[in-house]
Amino acid sequence: MISGRCAACKNQRRKCPSDCIFSPYFPANDPQRFACVHKIYGGSNVGKMLQEIPPYLRQEAADTLYLEAKCRIDDPIYGCVGIISSLYEQIQNAEIELAKIQTQIAFYKLQTQQQVEAEPNMEVLLSQSSNMGQFEWDNPTIASWFN
Amino acid sequence: MISGRCAACKNQRRKCPSDCIFSPYFPANDPQRFACVHKIYGGSNVGKMLQEIPPYLRQEAADTLYLEAKCRIDDPIYGCVGIISSLYEQIQNAEIELAKIQTQIAFYKLQTQQQVEAEPNMEVLLSQSSNMGQFEWDNPTIASWFN
Repeated sequence: MISGRCAACKNQRRKCPSDCIFSPYFPANDPQRFACVHKIYGGSNVGKMLQEIPPYLRQEAADTLYLEAKCRIDDPIYGCVGIISSLYEQIQNAEIELAKIQTQIAFYKLQTQQQVEAEPNMEVLLSQSSNMGQFEWDNPTIASWFN
Repeated sequence: MISGRCAACKNQRRKCPSDCIFSPYFPANDPQRFACVHKIYGGSNVGKMLQEIPPYLRQEAADTLYLEAKCRIDDPIYGCVGIISSLYEQIQNAEIELAKIQTQIAFYKLQTQQQVEAEPNMEVLLSQSSNMGQFEWDNPTIASWFN
């Protein structure tokens, strides 16, 4: 049944079996999707990875494999790690901004201590501002890549 | 020269040529590093990817391929995309926190308008606070994954 082949079987010039592992995730109308994962992982590795995953999670696995493969094609040096590194930098910049505003609030707090005692709304502001800047890097694996 | 084989040639049970593409990036004393990329990409795909990159960038490419492979082994469904998704969530939470403090500062600003006019330091604080919360998602590719 040549006309019903999925993108993977079409790419590999073979019949597409009814239980094809690729068929639900690599439709014939999107050959580029399979071409990406094929270039980076090789078709048989993709098939093996999908086989090891419960069927109800395979769509998401195929999607993320495709995204990572596309990243690696777009950026052969850094791939997805380049994106993670850039996000890490953005988070660090946000931490710096938060630290600045904390410093200024603390400075102002010292100056307006007397008013704080008289103004309940200012107390709320200052207590909340002291909770800012606690943007912890909550994934020790990634943190170790950059430290 | 069996004893001098790199991790890749040792894994593939072959001689390690003097110009081996793997040798500088997959030393014999870290067989796990090659095992990871081999499992995910296949050895020959890794060799091909390294070949396509200028020599001075190959170390970084090998490092990021290893990190991505390790991520995929640790998380076969989401791999590195899982980390990116989690960072995206952290950034969104930080944006919410920034919006909260902005709202409270604005609220306070209204209440203390008269004092602002008399206190130059408060002006600095309030002008800087209005620049917060501009944590823009600066990579349209990733943004499109989640929107």
